[in-house]
Amino acid sequence: MNNETREKLMGVSVATLATALYKRGLRHQVIQDVRPVGWKGKNMVGPAFTLRYMPAREDRNTLAEFRNPEHPQRVAIETCPEGAVLVMDSRKQAEAASAGDILITRLMKRGGAGVVTDGGFRDAAVIAELDIPAYHTRPSSPTNLTNNEAIALNEPIGCGDAPVFPGDIIVGDADCVIVIPAHLAEEVADEAVEMTAYEDFVVERVKDDHAIIGLYPCTKNEHRTAFEAWRAANNR
Amino acid sequence: MNNETREKLMGVSVATLATALYKRGLRHQVIQDVRPVGWKGKNMVGPAFTLRYMPAREDRNTLAEFRNPEHPQRVAIETCPEGAVLVMDSRKQAEAASAGDILITRLMKRGGAGVVTDGGFRDAAVIAELDIPAYHTRPSSPTNLTNNEAIALNEPIGCGDAPVFPGDIIVGDADCVIVIPAHLAEEVADEAVEMTAYEDFVVERVKDDHAIIGLYPCTKNEHRTAFEAWRAANNR
Amino acid sequence: MNNETREKLMGVSVATLATALYKRGLRHQVIQDVRPVGWKGKNMVGPAFTLRYMPAREDRNTLAEFRNPEHPQRVAIETCPEGAVLVMDSRKQAEAASAGDILITRLMKRGGAGVVTDGGFRDAAVIAELDIPAYHTRPSSPTNLTNNEAIALNEPIGCGDAPVFPGDIIVGDADCVIVIPAHLAEEVADEAVEMTAYEDFVVERVKDDHAIIGLYPCTKNEHRTAFEAWRAANNR
Amino acid sequence: MNNETREKLMGVSVATLATALYKRGLRHQVIQDVRPVGWKGKNMVGPAFTLRYMPAREDRNTLAEFRNPEHPQRVAIETCPEGAVLVMDSRKQAEAASAGDILITRLMKRGGAGVVTDGGFRDAAVIAELDIPAYHTRPSSPTNLTNNEAIALNEPIGCGDAPVFPGDIIVGDADCVIVIPAHLAEEVADEAVEMTAYEDFVVERVKDDHAIIGLYPCTKNEHRTAFEAWRAANNR
Amino acid sequence: MNNETREKLMGVSVATLATALYKRGLRHQVIQDVRPVGWKGKNMVGPAFTLRYMPAREDRNTLAEFRNPEHPQRVAIETCPEGAVLVMDSRKQAEAASAGDILITRLMKRGGAGVVTDGGFRDAAVIAELDIPAYHTRPSSPTNLTNNEAIALNEPIGCGDAPVFPGDIIVGDADCVIVIPAHLAEEVADEAVEMTAYEDFVVERVKDDHAIIGLYPCTKNEHRTAFEAWRAANNR
Amino acid sequence: MNNETREKLMGVSVATLATALYKRGLRHQVIQDVRPVGWKGKNMVGPAFTLRYMPAREDRNTLAEFRNPEHPQRVAIETCPEGAVLVMDSRKQAEAASAGDILITRLMKRGGAGVVTDGGFRDAAVIAELDIPAYHTRPSSPTNLTNNEAIALNEPIGCGDAPVFPGDIIVGDADCVIVIPAHLAEEVADEAVEMTAYEDFVVERVKDDHAIIGLYPCTKNEHRTAFEAWRAANNR
Repeated sequence: MNNETREKLMGVSVATLATALYKRGLRHQVIQDVRPVGWKGKNMVGPAFTLRYMPAREDRNTLAEFRNPEHPQRVAIETCPEGAVLVMDSRKQAEAASAGDILITRLMKRGGAGVVTDGGFRDAAVIAELDIPAYHTRPSSPTNLTNNEAIALNEPIGCGDAPVFPGDIIVGDADCVIVIPAHLAEEVADEAVEMTAYEDFVVERVKDDHAIIGLYPCTKNEHRTAFEAWRAANNR
Repeated sequence: MNNETREKLMGVSVATLATALYKRGLRHQVIQDVRPVGWKGKNMVGPAFTLRYMPAREDRNTLAEFRNPEHPQRVAIETCPEGAVLVMDSRKQAEAASAGDILITRLMKRGGAGVVTDGGFRDAAVIAELDIPAYHTRPSSPTNLTNNEAIALNEPIGCGDAPVFPGDIIVGDADCVIVIPAHLAEEVADEAVEMTAYEDFVVERVKDDHAIIGLYPCTKNEHRTAFEAWRAANNR
Repeated sequence: MNNETREKLMGVSVATLATALYKRGLRHQVIQDVRPVGWKGKNMVGPAFTLRYMPAREDRNTLAEFRNPEHPQRVAIETCPEGAVLVMDSRKQAEAASAGDILITRLMKRGGAGVVTDGGFRDAAVIAELDIPAYHTRPSSPTNLTNNEAIALNEPIGCGDAPVFPGDIIVGDADCVIVIPAHLAEEVADEAVEMTAYEDFVVERVKDDHAIIGLYPCTKNEHRTAFEAWRAANNR
Repeated sequence: MNNETREKLMGVSVATLATALYKRGLRHQVIQDVRPVGWKGKNMVGPAFTLRYMPAREDRNTLAEFRNPEHPQRVAIETCPEGAVLVMDSRKQAEAASAGDILITRLMKRGGAGVVTDGGFRDAAVIAELDIPAYHTRPSSPTNLTNNEAIALNEPIGCGDAPVFPGDIIVGDADCVIVIPAHLAEEVADEAVEMTAYEDFVVERVKDDHAIIGLYPCTKNEHRTAFEAWRAANNR
Repeated sequence: MNNETREKLMGVSVATLATALYKRGLRHQVIQDVRPVGWKGKNMVGPAFTLRYMPAREDRNTLAEFRNPEHPQRVAIETCPEGAVLVMDSRKQAEAASAGDILITRLMKRGGAGVVTDGGFRDAAVIAELDIPAYHTRPSSPTNLTNNEAIALNEPIGCGDAPVFPGDIIVGDADCVIVIPAHLAEEVADEAVEMTAYEDFVVERVKDDHAIIGLYPCTKNEHRTAFEAWRAANNR
Repeated sequence: MNNETREKLMGVSVATLATALYKRGLRHQVIQDVRPVGWKGKNMVGPAFTLRYMPAREDRNTLAEFRNPEHPQRVAIETCPEGAVLVMDSRKQAEAASAGDILITRLMKRGGAGVVTDGGFRDAAVIAELDIPAYHTRPSSPTNLTNNEAIALNEPIGCGDAPVFPGDIIVGDADCVIVIPAHLAEEVADEAVEMTAYEDFVVERVKDDHAIIGLYPCTKNEHRTAFEAWRAANNR
C-alpha cells in the first residue's frame, strides 16, 4: 500500500468503505462484533498479517510452550511487518485471551499499525492506553493457552465472519473494522474520499434544514449545483 | 401525550417505570439489550413512531433503491412526528446498520425526540455527539441494505423482544428503554413520580445507615413518619 | 483472608492470577462476560458470600414478597459479612435485574467489598457512581422478580461458568473477575506479586526495544541478570 | 401424588397442561429445549427429586471422585424415591454429560419414573432402548466431571429455565416436559382431563369440516350441545 | 402458480433450487433452521400466505382473546387459500407455540398445502401424523399467547431470516424450506428440472466410479456426450 | 492405524473413549453438537484428512469456481486417502452446506471411512441412505459457496471446538464423534476395550439389582471377583 492510499484511508469512515465495497458486490467485509480497546482518535490502516488459532489441546498447550522461540504467537509479534495490522482468527471465542499488553506493546514498538482479534485481549485496560490501535470483542484475562493454540502465520483466515487474506487492507475507526481486498484498495480509497466529500456536504445541508429525499442520494440538480460550489469553497 | 406527563417521565428512571408496569402484570416492556449511543444526560421521552425491517432480498435492495423518494426508511425519517421516538424493529440483528448519522441528524432537525433500534447504527461515534437520544445494541458499519429492507411504517412491531404499538410512550435513561402502553402513560407517570420520591428518601436513609428490611418496601411506621416529614421538608 | 494477602491481591491483575491458577490446573476460574459497572480505579478483593437465584415462578414472586423480612435477596444484603464480596448466580440471564442501587448502597454502607452478578443490575448508572466495586454483564431495569427468585444463601454456585464456593477469594480488576479457591489464596497472591514484578520489568524492557523471545518467559541469562538489578533498584 | 392423579396425567398432553397453568398465571413451567431420548409411547409422570450441578473445578472433579460413596450424583441415583422423576439442573450445558446408561439403568431398576436434564446424556442410544422415560437436549459423550460437579440433592433448582421444587409433579410427553407445582397437581389434572375431552371432540368436528371459530374455544350453542352428546356417547 | 410449475417443483430438491437462485444473486432464500414435523415423503409446494407474530403483551393476550372471531391466528387458518402454504413469522422464538394440532388439522381440511414457522408447534407428535407438510424448529407446548401475538395477515415478513412476500412460492423437502420469488418461480422450476436431470446422471456416473472433477460441473465432452445419451435412454 | 486398532475402536463407544482421554488430561476431544446423518449401525473409524473453510468472499465464490479442477473442496474428495475420515472445519456455521450427496457418494466410492462437518450437509436425506457414515449439525440446502470458501487441505483445524490434526484417529458412534491424538490411538483403544468389558459386566450386574456404589467404579472385592469370573465365562 502506498502512502497516498494510506492517507486517504485515514480520513474516511468504515461505513463509507462498507458502502463502496457493497457497490462491488462485497457484503461481508466488516469484521463483526469487535470494538476499539480504547478509541485513540485516529483510524487504523495497514495490510493484514494474519495469525490463526485453533482449539487448544491440553498436552500441546502448557506454559512451557512459551519457552519455545518458535511459538507462532510470539513469532507473529516479532515478524509482523512494520506498518501492518496483525489480524487474529480466534474463532470468535473470548473465553481466553488472544494476547496481552506485553505482546501488544512489543508490536507497537516494532511499528505495527494495529491489531485485531475476534476474541478478547487480557490487560485490556493497559492496552487501551498504548499508542497502537487494538480491536477485540471484550476483555478476557485467561491466558490464550487455555483455549487457543497459535498454529499458522499469514494464511487466509476468517475474523469476525469476514474473510481476510494476507495483504488485504484493514481499516478501523471508532465503530468497526473492515477488510478491503488488496486489489481494490486504491480505487476504493479514491471513491471513499469522493463519497466523504459529498457526505460532509450533506451533513451541512441537513443541519441547514434540507430534507434527505433528493439530497442523499443526490437526485436533484439543486443539490448537485450546491455541492459543486461547496467543493470549490472548501477545497474538497 | 401532554407536556405534564412528559415532564414527569423526564424525571423518573426506567427501573421505576418497569416496576410500575410489573404491578399491572406487564413484565416484558423493557427493550432488551439496547444501550445509549453516547448518554446525553437526560431521558428520552415520546410516543412511538415505528419502522419495520424485514430480511433483505438482494434484488430489491440495491443502492439504487435509495433514489426512490418513497423508500420507507427515508420516509420514516421525513414523516416521524415532532416529539415522537422512532422505534425500529431490526429483528435483533446488528450485522448491518439500521441507520446512520445523516438520517439521525435529519430526525434531530425535524424535532424527533429520539431513536431506538434493536440492531446497530453506523457512524455511531458521530451519533453519540448529536443532540438527540439514540439507543442501539452496538455500532454496525454496513449499509442497512445488506440485511434489512425497510418495509412498513407505524405498524405494531417487536423491538428487543418488547411489544411496541404506535403511540406507546417510549422512555429511555442511561441504562435501558421501556415501552409504556399509551393508555397507561399518565397513571404510570404519576405513580413513578411517587415511587421516585420514596426511593430518593430511601437512598438518604440507607446512607444514614438504616437497614433495608422494613424500609424498602416500607413496612415500619417509623419510616412512614420520617418519609412524610422528608416530603414536607423537600417539597416532594 | 489476612490483610497481607488482601494487600497483595489489590496490586496484581486478574490476568496474572489466571496464569497462576492455570499453572495449578485450574482453567475456568474467571467469571465469563462480566465487566465493571463503572471502573473505580482499584481492585475488588474479598471472600465470596453467595446468593443463588432460580427461575421465578409467578405466584411466588409478586411485589408483596419484598415485604417478607426473610426474603433471601434482602437477607443477603443485610448479612453479607464486612469485607466480603457478594456473588450472585443469576444463571447468566440479564433480562431482569439481579439487584439495584438501593441494595448496593446498603451493601456499601455495611462494608461489603464488592458485588458480582452474571446477570445485570438496574440503576447501573447510579451504581457506577457508588464507592463499591460492582460487576455485571449489562444494565437491566426490570425488577428481579420478573425472572429470578432468590432461593439460597452461601451455597456453592456457578457465576459466569466459574465455580464459586463460599469463602473463595474474589478479585476483580478493570477487565475481569476471578475466583481463587480459598486454600490457594495465599500462595497464589505471593506468586502473583512475584510474577507482576517480572512483568513490570518486561514492559520496561519491551519499551526499550527488547524482543519478546527469550524475555517473556525468561530463557536468557542476560534478562535474568538485568531483572535482578532492576528488582534491587526498584525495591521489588 | 395419588394414583388417580397419576393416571389422569398419563392421559393428557403437556400442551393441555401448559394451558391449564397459563390460566393460573404460570407461564414458564415448560422445561425449554429438551426432548425424549427415544420416545417410549407413554407419558412420564412423577414428583421431582432434584440434583443440582455447578461448574466443575478441576481439582475437585477427577475420576477418583467417583470412588467416593457419597458422590452426590451416585447418591441421587441410589436415593431417588420409587415413582419419582430425577430432574437435573445442568445449567443448560450439554458439552459434557449429565449421566450415562449405567446410572439410568440403575434408576430404572430402582423404580424411578423418569429422568430429565437440561444438559445431555452419554450413551443416549442405549438409554433410548431402556424402559424408563428420559429427556435431554442432545447426546453428549464426555464424562460429567469435565464440566459439571454434582453439588446438592433435592434443592429447588432451575431446569431449562423452568422453576422446579422438590415434589412438583413432572409430566413429559412426546414433545416436552412440564413442571406442575405440587399444590396444583390435582386440580390441574382434573381440568386437563376435561380439556382433553373437549379437544378430542374438537378434532373430530374439525375432521368433519367444521370451522375453528366458535368451536375452539366454544362460543356456539350448537357445539356445546354436540359436545354433550359426544361425551355421553363416548363415556367421556 | 400453474399446475405444471407445481408438478415440477414437487420433483426437485431444495438444494437444487437454492443453487438456481444463487445463480440469480439470491443467497438467503432458505428458511434457516426449520425441519419437517414428521417427513411425509413428498415435497411441500404452494404460494405463501403469511401470518406475522409480535411479542405478546400480557393484557392483550389472555385466553379470552381466542373467543374473538377476528383473532388473526384463527382468521389465518380459516382464510388461507386452498393450495397455499401458511408461513408464520414467529421471530425465531420457540419458547411458546406458533400453533397446534387442531389448527393445523383445520388447515389441512381446508386444503392448505402446508405450514411453516420459525418457532415451534405444540402437539408436534400429532401434527407429524397429519396428511399436511409442516416445518418448525422444535416442539413447543406452551400456548402461543405466552409469547406471541398474531398481529397481521399476508404482509411481507421474515421467516428463519429469509424474506417472504405473499405469493412467493414455498418449497419444502426432507431437509429444508426455500422461498422462490413469485416472478422467478416458473423459470427456476424449469431450470431445476434440467439441473436435476444432470444431477441424477452424475450420481449414476459417480456410482460407476467416475471422478467429480470434469463431471460436476461438466467440463468434459466425454460426460456431455454420455449425458445426452442418458437423457435419451431415460426420457429426461 | 493398523487393522487391529481399527477393529478395537469399532467395538467401543465414544463415551468410553472420552473417559480414557479424560484420564490423560484431554477434556475437549469430542466434536461438539454434531450428530449422525442417519445412523448406520456401526462406528466410523479412521485417520483424519482435513478440509478448512473460511468465510466466502463473493467475488471468489461464484459457481464458475467449481469448474476449476483445483478447487480444494473437490480436490479434498478426490485425494482423501482410502480408509480416512474427511473432517471439515466449517466454523460451526450451518447456514450454507459443507458438501452434498454427490461429493459424499464419490467419497464413499473412493473408500472414505466417513465424513464430519461442524456445519451442515445439503441432500442430507440422500446422504442418510448412503453406505458411509456422515456427521453434521443439521441439514442445510444452500450451496457452500454462499458462506464457505474451501481454502486448505490437511492442516490442523478446529471442528466443533475440538482440535483436529491430520492423522488423528476419528471415531463416531450413534451419539457423538471424538478425536484421538494419533500417538495415543493404540493405547486408548486397548484401554477402551478393557473398560468396555467392565461396563458390560456392570450393566448386567445393575440389571440384577446391584447398586452403583462400589460397583462403578469398582471398589468392592465382591464385584472384582465376580468380574473375573464373568470375563472367563464370556471370553472377554
